[in-house]
Amino acid sequence: MTEDPLFGYRGYARTFLMSNNIKIGDRVRIKKLKENFTVEGIVMPRSLLAEDGFIEIKLDNGYNIGIRITDDTVIEKVKEERKEFKGGLIVPEIPKPRPGLPKVSIISTGGTIASKVDYRTGAVYPALTSEDLYRAVPEIANIACIEAEVLFSIFSENMTPKHWEIIAQHVADKINKGFDGIVVTHGTDTMGYTAAALSFALQDLPVPVVLVGAQRSSDRPSSDAAINLYSAVKVAAEAPFAEVVVVMHGSISDDYCLVHRGTKVRKMHTSRRDAFRTVNDTPLARVYRDRIEMLSNNYKHRDKSRRLKLKNKFDDKVVLLKVYPGMKGDIIDYIVDSGYHGIVLEGTGLGHTPETLFPAIKRAIREGIPVVMTSQCIWGRINMNVYSTGRELLSLGVIPGEDMLPETAYVKLSWVLAQTRDLDKVRELMLTNIAGEINPRSLISYYPPL
Amino acid sequence: MTEDPLFGYRGYARTFLMSNNIKIGDRVRIKKLKENFTVEGIVMPRSLLAEDGFIEIKLDNGYNIGIRITDDTVIEKVKEERKEFKGGLIVPEIPKPRPGLPKVSIISTGGTIASKVDYRTGAVYPALTSEDLYRAVPEIANIACIEAEVLFSIFSENMTPKHWEIIAQHVADKINKGFDGIVVTHGTDTMGYTAAALSFALQDLPVPVVLVGAQRSSDRPSSDAAINLYSAVKVAAEAPFAEVVVVMHGSISDDYCLVHRGTKVRKMHTSRRDAFRTVNDTPLARVYRDRIEMLSNNYKHRDKSRRLKLKNKFDDKVVLLKVYPGMKGDIIDYIVDSGYHGIVLEGTGLGHTPETLFPAIKRAIREGIPVVMTSQCIWGRINMNVYSTGRELLSLGVIPGEDMLPETAYVKLSWVLAQTRDLDKVRELMLTNIAGEINPRSLISYYPPL
Repeated sequence: MTEDPLFGYRGYARTFLMSNNIKIGDRVRIKKLKENFTVEGIVMPRSLLAEDGFIEIKLDNGYNIGIRITDDTVIEKVKEERKEFKGGLIVPEIPKPRPGLPKVSIISTGGTIASKVDYRTGAVYPALTSEDLYRAVPEIANIACIEAEVLFSIFSENMTPKHWEIIAQHVADKINKGFDGIVVTHGTDTMGYTAAALSFALQDLPVPVVLVGAQRSSDRPSSDAAINLYSAVKVAAEAPFAEVVVVMHGSISDDYCLVHRGTKVRKMHTSRRDAFRTVNDTPLARVYRDRIEMLSNNYKHRDKSRRLKLKNKFDDKVVLLKVYPGMKGDIIDYIVDSGYHGIVLEGTGLGHTPETLFPAIKRAIREGIPVVMTSQCIWGRINMNVYSTGRELLSLGVIPGEDMLPETAYVKLSWVLAQTRDLDKVRELMLTNIAGEINPRSLISYYPPL
Repeated sequence: MTEDPLFGYRGYARTFLMSNNIKIGDRVRIKKLKENFTVEGIVMPRSLLAEDGFIEIKLDNGYNIGIRITDDTVIEKVKEERKEFKGGLIVPEIPKPRPGLPKVSIISTGGTIASKVDYRTGAVYPALTSEDLYRAVPEIANIACIEAEVLFSIFSENMTPKHWEIIAQHVADKINKGFDGIVVTHGTDTMGYTAAALSFALQDLPVPVVLVGAQRSSDRPSSDAAINLYSAVKVAAEAPFAEVVVVMHGSISDDYCLVHRGTKVRKMHTSRRDAFRTVNDTPLARVYRDRIEMLSNNYKHRDKSRRLKLKNKFDDKVVLLKVYPGMKGDIIDYIVDSGYHGIVLEGTGLGHTPETLFPAIKRAIREGIPVVMTSQCIWGRINMNVYSTGRELLSLGVIPGEDMLPETAYVKLSWVLAQTRDLDKVRELMLTNIAGEINPRSLISYYPPL
């Protein structure tokens, strides 16, 4: 049951209805003066996936129609909301999923996409029963049979390695129960980190695991919640690959979503709907309303007979440290003194640090703390053989992070250290491509044009 | 004097000459078999700015011509190098700058662009006398009268706030001596940081200050050293603006360089020649061989009568700290305990941290250590009013960094703290746009397309 008397109406249509004091369930008469057009019916809830600027009306013959609001449109209330819509609320009809559709589990961890605003109190609370989802985006009923549940309800900046472990366990349970795909809703701030974590934790996946979020909440006209959720469910239900991916808006328009591999994706803008970008690789696919278009043929195929391996332990004593001019070695010394188990450096250029850090790095490695090098450039690849600074760091035992994102390298080191603290084994695992995090190729097309 | 017997020859032409055992100064006969073409003359050094695949020959009539090497080209030595080219060395002719040209000072601090390889020893050493420059890129003699000197010869990862102070002082001295523009050659790793530092240190500039580097050294066929240096000198000599800028390759092709404002530029790729990008703003200009095309009219105009204000003090007890899931407050506590003066956080999304950091952040601010928030998304703007995490951090006294790059905010806080440690004054200065580091506008076009 939803609390919103204008459920699904956003932007202009919402303003128009509010200013005329109309609620869902009211019987209204709508006139378009220029066209000499008049229609009467009951105002219905609207799909979040549908276009803004329309009013949905149930006619007396039982059909629903969407009427575009134009500058000559006039609406008048004929009769207050129907009695059976008690207390100003309405229960939109729940579409029945068609038999034989793929079964998709939606696990909510929090974030903008999973929230619903109570319009009377202004409070935001999680809204993720299957019924809520079908009501909000009824189109989902055409592509999958949904089971939804709330695992956490936290802002993603509060995710920790412990949460990664629990999410991975939960996803594994659902897969073992025979679901055809899993959707994890997640706040966008650290969705890339969690996507990397699940990529390492869930090995030999039989079906896709899709992380999805929203940059704008579903009460805003520009919300990406509905299209992202619809696309994520479509990927979980129908995609040919079995990998951990992030599905988010691909462009400013509402044309399509992009599917990003979980180890190669990064939030690159604070607020844009197309904030998520694949870095140092090609996005896996584009998702349109009616189809999934593969952009790469380099993926693990969906195969429900494959047996999932769960490796969901993460060491929470790892540090991600950005390098900057004038940085001193004392912070690294502190990290070693405090019993941390590993350090990922976000170095400059091809993988450099000020030489003033060398003694602290040397000591860290001598004391058994692996130090992994990544680049704050974000795009490109570590190459520590070009300049003497890099060669010196290599000789100290620093592990070059190849073309891994700093965030992915941080997650991976946390995952590796939960398995072994032997420096040679850590090095070997860090240099082995486990889940697409190391791409042997470097194509010009990976770098965004101007 | 150059050590290289094939000075200026790169890539294919170099290989062709080496495989035929030809050196500069040799008298050769070149035949093109298909065209029945033959020419004889002395092999001359070649401009680093000139196209690869040509041999430069001085004919007996005194003219130089460039001969394209095709698959039917044959070269034979007629006579060993001329006696006056002692020991396999050659002194290319130094072009004389034309009288009346703008005076440009080139200050070398190190990095790939300023290095020269000794082909007999493999050693790299700084090469930045004016004579070296005119020999390497004789085209410069047409646009400016150069005075060159070596200030440092260090890798840019070893730059510190102390170096920024010295460079700024040195630039100021040159400006006060009446130069029409200043070029600072710099390693690319931390060029963005130094550009930001000079932007704050050199106020009310009368003439442009141009930082320039190279991603590939000048002995490589794909070197960007020559075109970058030529473009930097052109901007220093001719540009209509008086700001601190970075001039670097703008595209994969050799078409043009881009001019980036010093506070809005970032190295975004480990190895590409077009690694430098303007973030959250428009590049100031494009530089072609023959013209400077302005891309923005929002700049401070060149005016030699303006009186430079030098504010070149930087506090070296500032930390740039990246935020990640699972991060603990102890590192912030350590920073406070160790007597650091300020912290720039690279938070998630719109400017968030795990709530587990709140106590340490609160304590830092209470003890007089300013904490500035930026975003690891890189593109976009801090907005801490959207979610409760942001509002909580604001209430603790965290200073929102607007659309400043994390690196620029780090440099700025270091500059501000050298002037005042009063928290209110620090906040006021951090929120004031001093050198284009805060852009009130957020345009869609700032974010690179896919």
